[in-house]
Amino acid sequence: MLQSKLFYITQKDLSESFVVPSHKFLVKSGYIVQLAAGVYIFTPLGWKVHRKIENIIREEMENIGAQEIHMPSLINKELWEETNRWKTIDPPLFQVKDRHDKLFGLGSTHEEVIVFLARKKQLSYKDLPFSLFQIQNKFRNELRAQAGLLRTREFYMKDLYSFHRSKEDFKPFYERVKEAYFKIFKRCGIKPILVDADPGTIGGEFSHEFMVEDEVGEDRIYFCRKCYTGINIEKGKELKCKNCGGDMSYVNSIEIAHIFYLGEIYSKKMNLLFQDKDGSKKYVIMGCYGIGLGRLMATIVQKFLTDKGILWPDQISPFDVHVIEIKSKAKKVREVAKNIYNLLSKEKIDVLYDDREKSAGEKFFDADYIGVPRRVVVSERGVKDNVVEVKVKDKIKKVKIKDFNKNFKKYLSL
Amino acid sequence: MLQSKLFYITQKDLSESFVVPSHKFLVKSGYIVQLAAGVYIFTPLGWKVHRKIENIIREEMENIGAQEIHMPSLINKELWEETNRWKTIDPPLFQVKDRHDKLFGLGSTHEEVIVFLARKKQLSYKDLPFSLFQIQNKFRNELRAQAGLLRTREFYMKDLYSFHRSKEDFKPFYERVKEAYFKIFKRCGIKPILVDADPGTIGGEFSHEFMVEDEVGEDRIYFCRKCYTGINIEKGKELKCKNCGGDMSYVNSIEIAHIFYLGEIYSKKMNLLFQDKDGSKKYVIMGCYGIGLGRLMATIVQKFLTDKGILWPDQISPFDVHVIEIKSKAKKVREVAKNIYNLLSKEKIDVLYDDREKSAGEKFFDADYIGVPRRVVVSERGVKDNVVEVKVKDKIKKVKIKDFNKNFKKYLSL
Repeated sequence: MLQSKLFYITQKDLSESFVVPSHKFLVKSGYIVQLAAGVYIFTPLGWKVHRKIENIIREEMENIGAQEIHMPSLINKELWEETNRWKTIDPPLFQVKDRHDKLFGLGSTHEEVIVFLARKKQLSYKDLPFSLFQIQNKFRNELRAQAGLLRTREFYMKDLYSFHRSKEDFKPFYERVKEAYFKIFKRCGIKPILVDADPGTIGGEFSHEFMVEDEVGEDRIYFCRKCYTGINIEKGKELKCKNCGGDMSYVNSIEIAHIFYLGEIYSKKMNLLFQDKDGSKKYVIMGCYGIGLGRLMATIVQKFLTDKGILWPDQISPFDVHVIEIKSKAKKVREVAKNIYNLLSKEKIDVLYDDREKSAGEKFFDADYIGVPRRVVVSERGVKDNVVEVKVKDKIKKVKIKDFNKNFKKYLSL
Repeated sequence: MLQSKLFYITQKDLSESFVVPSHKFLVKSGYIVQLAAGVYIFTPLGWKVHRKIENIIREEMENIGAQEIHMPSLINKELWEETNRWKTIDPPLFQVKDRHDKLFGLGSTHEEVIVFLARKKQLSYKDLPFSLFQIQNKFRNELRAQAGLLRTREFYMKDLYSFHRSKEDFKPFYERVKEAYFKIFKRCGIKPILVDADPGTIGGEFSHEFMVEDEVGEDRIYFCRKCYTGINIEKGKELKCKNCGGDMSYVNSIEIAHIFYLGEIYSKKMNLLFQDKDGSKKYVIMGCYGIGLGRLMATIVQKFLTDKGILWPDQISPFDVHVIEIKSKAKKVREVAKNIYNLLSKEKIDVLYDDREKSAGEKFFDADYIGVPRRVVVSERGVKDNVVEVKVKDKIKKVKIKDFNKNFKKYLSL
């Protein structure tokens, strides 16, 4: 798209002080705008990044055979009471009353609803296993929410739920989800630590967190730098890694995902049964698996911030290519830039074309904030020599315009 | 996907009585499951259809240069009070209190938030016009919600907002939105009536509704069958169409979209200004444009119901092709069906393959409910003659398997 048309709000002169670098960056460079504490608007730039993350997650969920559904946010009190979570869930629910004085809790998680749904089916062992996911807005009535997208009161979550005959059937699926998660995070440029964790108010026998080492993270974990596994326990004496015997460091980290073996807890409380091969009725074995999209986005930002702005990982970048035309009186400059823009756009490459009447300095300043990892700079001097400057991440090359137009995919590593 | 794996809930023996055919169909055939009055879960089948509609709308919005953003549902009371809608909006807001006793209204529409966002930018005439849209969950505190997806308390809406220097600049954009809407509805198989309407609590100088003639519709309009325009007024004497002079009938109809000329009302109330060419500050001229996705889905269902189930319009169908294998002891049948499934899937065609151990009768019964307009039936008798039965909408052809495999796109009108 034309950068002159991009609805882009930079707040460069913020008086506000920020605790977390990703928060400062996302607000300052106009990816998000705060509406209330922990409640954000995503601008076109911010939402493009968010949707990239959403689509990566969707693809990897579909790759493991999970089916997408959609559950509502208005969840009636009676349903929450079936699991006794109406009053006990932490953080507490946002409560809403309708015009008939009926109470609802805004969904912060959807175990109750998914079991309600599964219960509608007369489940036989033949129906198992199956897995359902959604990418949907969650509400959390947090007391404090001051770290930008790291802790919000409203955010998109991918929540996946799986249903099994037995723990034996559950285990390989749990491993497949782990693998899918590692793929997702790799595509996002993130290498997480797999951590034995406490299931908390979600419950269940065991759970794992995916943590990213970061000094702004709220969780302190023991972590082995050799095999990237860890334990979420209070600091005590020095520990050796169970997995590889390596030394463990005690570090701050951000939880970007949490997966749970729920076993029978929800199916017992809500009476979710299936008929087994021998005709007997048994409780369904369940797992659940969550990724918060906003927090993942903030974690990516934390990692890819530069001293000038950001350099997005390839698959998360709001645009594929940034074409920057350096303002010039020579008509040829605009011609070459426009031609490249059209050429790439025709190939369904998502290009941001800086066609604005701004100085080179301002353009590069903004470009560093937008952080597209592939850049084509068209300048008067370049055009005189029949070249454009192609930058892929930190590598800069001058390329003959003719060659570029013929082989732009090669030069841009597309 | 394999139909044996599809998470599919049919509720064929419902005791419940339904007023609206689309409601009955969507629940009975397992596209949606009711959680509370006017609050629904979308199953994999239902969500696939919903996402098809979502993507069509997104494409057509992007085609007119609108940029996608995302606004939250938690909207603070103070913001609603800037326009005096906290208490006056109809239907009333769902209210939520946070742990600091601050009040929020769950977004039923987002004029306040979009103006809050636009206000963050120091707008110059050079920034105008621009348009922003979102596809996001809305909450409406309806007193009654018993018509399935036609009237719900929680639903996805596409809301678009446009910003202009003047009414003159606004008008051509309004016309472009109209055109985009007609494209969207055409792709959904719907021919709407354009109706002069009352802006209601959204406000503004004028507005248009897109209505679909349907006896279950809650709105009564005068409608000209010749030029598909109408007026939303109380029944009076006989009317002639202003547009073409044709006779007008008084009919029931469903409102599937509403577009508004807001003019200065929101920018005045919320002080949204831009600096014009001559340096003077002026109020921004606004328009807003909404489509409710669930209601559109229900309206499509209303139109495409058949006596056996549904026949989805091409672009809305949950799958592109339905391959039905008629259970047989002959191994060849499974082989041929599987081969076709793999062949089409490789071409990124979204195929539902009925591989279940069910009778032909049951398979066709379900197929009519799933309503994919392209069907390939593989049976023992067919395979003996080296043919498959290809059905595109209501046209059935026997096609040599060899020919089909070579030219399936032609035979399937893909």
